[in-house]
Amino acid sequence: MALRHYTLDVSLSSPVDCASTVHGLLSIFHEQEMTETIHDTDGHGSIATFVGKNGRVVLLRVHTQGLVTIDLQCYDDDNLVQLDNLLNALEKKLKVLLHGNITRIKRLPPLRRGAEVDRYWPTADGRLIEYDIDRVVYEEDSQYQNIKILHSQQFGNILVLNGDVNLAESDFAYTQAIMGSGKENYAGKEVLILGGGDGGILAEVVKQKPKMVTMVEIDQKVIDGCKMHMRKTCGNILDNLKGDCYQILVEDCVPVLKKYVQDGKTFDYVINDLTAVPISTEPEEDSTWEFLRLILDLSIKVLCSTGKYFTQGNSVNLTEALSLYEEQLGKLSCPVGFSKEVVCVPSYLELWVFYTVWKK
Amino acid sequence: MALRHYTLDVSLSSPVDCASTVHGLLSIFHEQEMTETIHDTDGHGSIATFVGKNGRVVLLRVHTQGLVTIDLQCYDDDNLVQLDNLLNALEKKLKVLLHGNITRIKRLPPLRRGAEVDRYWPTADGRLIEYDIDRVVYEEDSQYQNIKILHSQQFGNILVLNGDVNLAESDFAYTQAIMGSGKENYAGKEVLILGGGDGGILAEVVKQKPKMVTMVEIDQKVIDGCKMHMRKTCGNILDNLKGDCYQILVEDCVPVLKKYVQDGKTFDYVINDLTAVPISTEPEEDSTWEFLRLILDLSIKVLCSTGKYFTQGNSVNLTEALSLYEEQLGKLSCPVGFSKEVVCVPSYLELWVFYTVWKK
Repeated sequence: MALRHYTLDVSLSSPVDCASTVHGLLSIFHEQEMTETIHDTDGHGSIATFVGKNGRVVLLRVHTQGLVTIDLQCYDDDNLVQLDNLLNALEKKLKVLLHGNITRIKRLPPLRRGAEVDRYWPTADGRLIEYDIDRVVYEEDSQYQNIKILHSQQFGNILVLNGDVNLAESDFAYTQAIMGSGKENYAGKEVLILGGGDGGILAEVVKQKPKMVTMVEIDQKVIDGCKMHMRKTCGNILDNLKGDCYQILVEDCVPVLKKYVQDGKTFDYVINDLTAVPISTEPEEDSTWEFLRLILDLSIKVLCSTGKYFTQGNSVNLTEALSLYEEQLGKLSCPVGFSKEVVCVPSYLELWVFYTVWKK
Repeated sequence: MALRHYTLDVSLSSPVDCASTVHGLLSIFHEQEMTETIHDTDGHGSIATFVGKNGRVVLLRVHTQGLVTIDLQCYDDDNLVQLDNLLNALEKKLKVLLHGNITRIKRLPPLRRGAEVDRYWPTADGRLIEYDIDRVVYEEDSQYQNIKILHSQQFGNILVLNGDVNLAESDFAYTQAIMGSGKENYAGKEVLILGGGDGGILAEVVKQKPKMVTMVEIDQKVIDGCKMHMRKTCGNILDNLKGDCYQILVEDCVPVLKKYVQDGKTFDYVINDLTAVPISTEPEEDSTWEFLRLILDLSIKVLCSTGKYFTQGNSVNLTEALSLYEEQLGKLSCPVGFSKEVVCVPSYLELWVFYTVWKK
């Protein structure tokens, strides 16, 4: 059972008499056999609630400063045409009552609340976004995170980790960007991928015939889900943990990086595709930033002198978080330079910053 | 004065006692000095409304089939931390009351209702989308349409015609797509642009040194707004209606096309950049489809035998509208072939279909 929540907002150029506006709409609700309660508001305009049949509820507010808001809630299986007519009647009547005073009438697409398939996945910069998601194709709680793969008509399957949209099958732009936007040649190179459980980067790097790619992904369940449901992204690369020129280590990347540093092992490319707040088996750092810096520092240490480190940053709108990240780059044990690029990743519905970092 | 509308939805694996769940939350509202009304629902769960100080209102519903929905409305200048705490307290208490029965807790970014700057511009496929719009930079009602140019932090200025997002300064991908995705050479060619008042296509075509570009845009006020506020799109091309290799006719394109047909004038490229429902000074056709077909038919008539016609189609999700459009292509007076491409235009927040049409 899901709720549809319609809104109708009318902005006015000047205040109106609140009580008489509510009164002017009453007959419309009575026609719908809805019963009203007029609430005492202590000087904050008029508030009326209407309860009707089939679980229909309306909250009507005429605000003191030139705004009328109407909320209409009903169930999914209600007669939606009838409800549309009710909203039309209210809009029409308000146009008569508030004649010449209206500056804007706004009706939003209805919110779908409590539905089995959740369509709302806010952007990193906190905006409300409705996706065209019609089914859940995979859902698991691993020991590290909640893993969902959701089907979107336009984006294909979307990997969502702990509620964050990670990658959709439409998002080759992400893979391209985090590999250096087509300006690099991976042939014969040593490559290290941190995270990347969807297999997108691994599949693309392997196509370029590198010497060896090592991917270190902590969560087997991400690999399992993507292997089955993100094949437009990973192809068949996740079907085996080892291939001619690649290996997948299902491990926490921190101890692996530490071992590489200890052994003096280096890479031409390190691609950090970890989640925004990386997951660790034994977080030893106090804050997320310190943990991010630890991974960065270790990654730069295993980079050969001409090597490049690629990573995704954040929403282009989160300027403070981006600045903080860039600050971390100045605090590494080895001095680095960096550049950034703003990329449109289709399923993100916000522009995203990618970084390239190198040893100075 | 704008309203913030918060929601908190708790989905349950099995129904709960509605009245006692409402009762269990009462003390939280009393602490906030909110006064309740318990409504009679005729068997559709429990409904309670709470009215507090400063215009705060809560609608609490415990539905019979395993769902609790809470709406909290307050004004923009309210103490938002306090309201966040109220929602936290409600969530915490619900976790205690409904212990072990909860399958999902969802809090959406608050809706901003009646705000001076409207951030909600639904997609063509009808989804609710919040943009990062912070100011209106231009607004005019021309004799044809409502014209807005809105500023987005990430997309730059966005041209919105009659409520439809047309183009943002970030959307070079649109211009590229409707020019044939970089596969065409416009040097020395005769080009006709229908609509295109933002100047994006004109600016790009002119860079390629065509023989002559004619742009036919009906609405001077679109040109005026874009000339001032969409300069990342149009550069200085709209500063003059005539240049070395281009002219802008501020006219209805239908009579212009008819004149070209009559005169036997032909073009190497016709680029239809009209709005989804084209505007006409004297619509002579019965339906939008007939009008679209008229423009299509005239455009194909002025196309030289090796020429190409480019246009934007629709949201990739609107499969029915796309099919209807393709049907029109079969009804033209001259047989045509067509291909289509799906493109990510950053500010659209949905994938978009572009068509190429040619004479068979």
